[in-house]
Amino acid sequence: MSYKVAIRSFKTLSYVGSYKKIRDRPITFYCAAIIGAGYVTYNQYRQNKTKVEAKEIMQLKNYMAEPITPISQLEKNQDDMKTQMEMLIMRIQAEFCRALEKEEDEAWEDEKTADEYDFDNDIFLPSPESKFKVDRWIRKEGGGGITCVLQDGRVFEKAGVNISVVSGKLPPAAVQQMKSRGKNFESKELPFFAAGVSAVIHPRNPMVPTIHFNYRYFEVKDKNEVHWWFGGGTDLTPYYLNEEDAIHFHMTLKHACDAHDTSYYAKFKKWCDDYFHITHRGERRGVGGIFFDDVDYPDQQRAFEFVTSCAEAVIPSYLPIVQKHKDDAYGYHERQWQLLRRGRYVEFNLIYDRGTKFGLNTPEARYESILMSLPLNAKWEYMHEPKPNTPEEKLMQVLKEPRDWLYISKAKSSKT
Amino acid sequence: MSYKVAIRSFKTLSYVGSYKKIRDRPITFYCAAIIGAGYVTYNQYRQNKTKVEAKEIMQLKNYMAEPITPISQLEKNQDDMKTQMEMLIMRIQAEFCRALEKEEDEAWEDEKTADEYDFDNDIFLPSPESKFKVDRWIRKEGGGGITCVLQDGRVFEKAGVNISVVSGKLPPAAVQQMKSRGKNFESKELPFFAAGVSAVIHPRNPMVPTIHFNYRYFEVKDKNEVHWWFGGGTDLTPYYLNEEDAIHFHMTLKHACDAHDTSYYAKFKKWCDDYFHITHRGERRGVGGIFFDDVDYPDQQRAFEFVTSCAEAVIPSYLPIVQKHKDDAYGYHERQWQLLRRGRYVEFNLIYDRGTKFGLNTPEARYESILMSLPLNAKWEYMHEPKPNTPEEKLMQVLKEPRDWLYISKAKSSKT
Repeated sequence: MSYKVAIRSFKTLSYVGSYKKIRDRPITFYCAAIIGAGYVTYNQYRQNKTKVEAKEIMQLKNYMAEPITPISQLEKNQDDMKTQMEMLIMRIQAEFCRALEKEEDEAWEDEKTADEYDFDNDIFLPSPESKFKVDRWIRKEGGGGITCVLQDGRVFEKAGVNISVVSGKLPPAAVQQMKSRGKNFESKELPFFAAGVSAVIHPRNPMVPTIHFNYRYFEVKDKNEVHWWFGGGTDLTPYYLNEEDAIHFHMTLKHACDAHDTSYYAKFKKWCDDYFHITHRGERRGVGGIFFDDVDYPDQQRAFEFVTSCAEAVIPSYLPIVQKHKDDAYGYHERQWQLLRRGRYVEFNLIYDRGTKFGLNTPEARYESILMSLPLNAKWEYMHEPKPNTPEEKLMQVLKEPRDWLYISKAKSSKT
Repeated sequence: MSYKVAIRSFKTLSYVGSYKKIRDRPITFYCAAIIGAGYVTYNQYRQNKTKVEAKEIMQLKNYMAEPITPISQLEKNQDDMKTQMEMLIMRIQAEFCRALEKEEDEAWEDEKTADEYDFDNDIFLPSPESKFKVDRWIRKEGGGGITCVLQDGRVFEKAGVNISVVSGKLPPAAVQQMKSRGKNFESKELPFFAAGVSAVIHPRNPMVPTIHFNYRYFEVKDKNEVHWWFGGGTDLTPYYLNEEDAIHFHMTLKHACDAHDTSYYAKFKKWCDDYFHITHRGERRGVGGIFFDDVDYPDQQRAFEFVTSCAEAVIPSYLPIVQKHKDDAYGYHERQWQLLRRGRYVEFNLIYDRGTKFGLNTPEARYESILMSLPLNAKWEYMHEPKPNTPEEKLMQVLKEPRDWLYISKAKSSKT
């Protein structure tokens, strides 16, 4: 516990340390507004682990933009799961964006010239491509979102991190689409609430995999009864298979799951392999990870804690892989292969992904936020097939037959 | 009429002339086989205009590969619409592929060196990228197809021309998807036949538009009654708007329609604008053309003749535009815009196109033939918007509000 607090304090310090660097961005306005609003009671920090800790979060974190729900309302409904989820996704978005920006900053650092030096403040000016562009948008029917995109960076070719907090009324058919298992609702129009964070990171170096994660919370009101559930997952799409990386990735997710239920990882790993399936090609999108939907067990608070653990596992599961490979050597051939695989990514997202389909079918959808998951560049070659015994073919084998990275089933069968 | 015959004879001669050039390709085998089979009765040429003229065609045309239906069967059922349609799409495919190859040949000609000269035969060796790769494939459930793709050429970045002749049994739900208007079938499983030609040509130069066309014939047997209909269309997707080209394109299609019914063009032009709609973006894929489905009027033979006219209009509608612009100057900026628009093309094809969806949902589908329509390269930039008063914005205006290129509605209203 104290370890976690120490880590958080350290994170807070590093945020403050990097604060100067980003002072020319609109976020300072929000920070100032939030701080100005008088939330300075740091003492209350972590008094209640499971509570939303709105004050702490509002005070300390550099969110990417002002929350979608008015602060006064969040403050009033701190115990409400809707508030807790909005605060969680705001924090996850900010932490992840800052972590990626740090990688970009470092990559640009070496190449900066005296022209880019701010002598008054003794720092280098930030490179425009090394920062996320932040768009806070409001939805006519209720709610809105914050879309952060970093494009054409040194390390990341395209990185999108989106949160949305939306509400309104939906026909039952649309609600069914939001769930993977069926559930019969009685009313004709159902008031709903959905809050989620979603990100797709396409790095430039073909030796660095693409990552996707999404964590979401739904509420639907039918005949005065509120139905709620969580969904989400994190999955990795390498262009070249590095088994050590795949194991590290899966192991980190397994730890996040095991802290809540030791049966989760195996179940959600399989679900992930089944979901990210490019059916017409008979191949998976990547090496998987975890995926789940309709989680309304064991109870709301504990389901939220599980989702929190998963979302907090994204950075430790991915950043070490980025750092390890971002400067790996590669050439024209590897880039071409990466572009072809990005074409497959587009195929999955536009043809099969339920989230994309649901999003684009929603009237007045903000399609730019939905399609930010698409890579900057993609390629389709007719009848392309990797040559036998190449690294490209080695990847294809794993995409055709998902591997049990952590020998879960082996361990199970040896126990019995 | 005699003009048409003269043109055909000229085409025949030019086929023979180019025969040597392509003698190293599998097609020679089919030609030899067909010729060897003894169809040498040139005298019967064009005795019956509306008949399939199987012998003539088999003897004279350099098809891309052997027909899918056994030649003996085609010969036996010359009056059957299934045979007529298969012969039509074989011919259209070959004529179109040869016309595109000719453009490639010319583009390569200037750059050839002595190394590429075949002194024995006094000709230049063909450049591999200037010829279509031909794949003849057989479908387990019945029928098959011929897929021709030219990739990474000088003039054409990716050109795919596919024919398929398939039959089998379909559940009524699948049959409904094949039609744009509903029709209730009674049987649980319906024997069907479908023959069609489909092509998408993505040129390299951003000043040359992409073209797509597709002409198809369906038969479905329900309770011993045969239902049949034709569908199809040709549409143009420019990256930079050239009004003269758009008018030429639409005018050529209008002439093809007018020869059969003067009400067709206006009706099918509107249908095309409605169909090629990227709904989530509120824009059309291109400047349209014609699109129709469920054509079972005025009778089968005349419907076939209409489709024949449309298919024969493809080359005159498009080739002059290619020739006019293939050497236009362009730079990085125009290429980037072309790639972004190609991303939109991918969006339409994977999200909305009924043919692609139907194809990919069919078990054992040959996905490579379905997805040959995707460009070699595509790009997605977050929140890209053309600057005001640029050629890019001028295109967007037409994509948002389709234009009446031939002033059809104006002419109509001035008459009344």
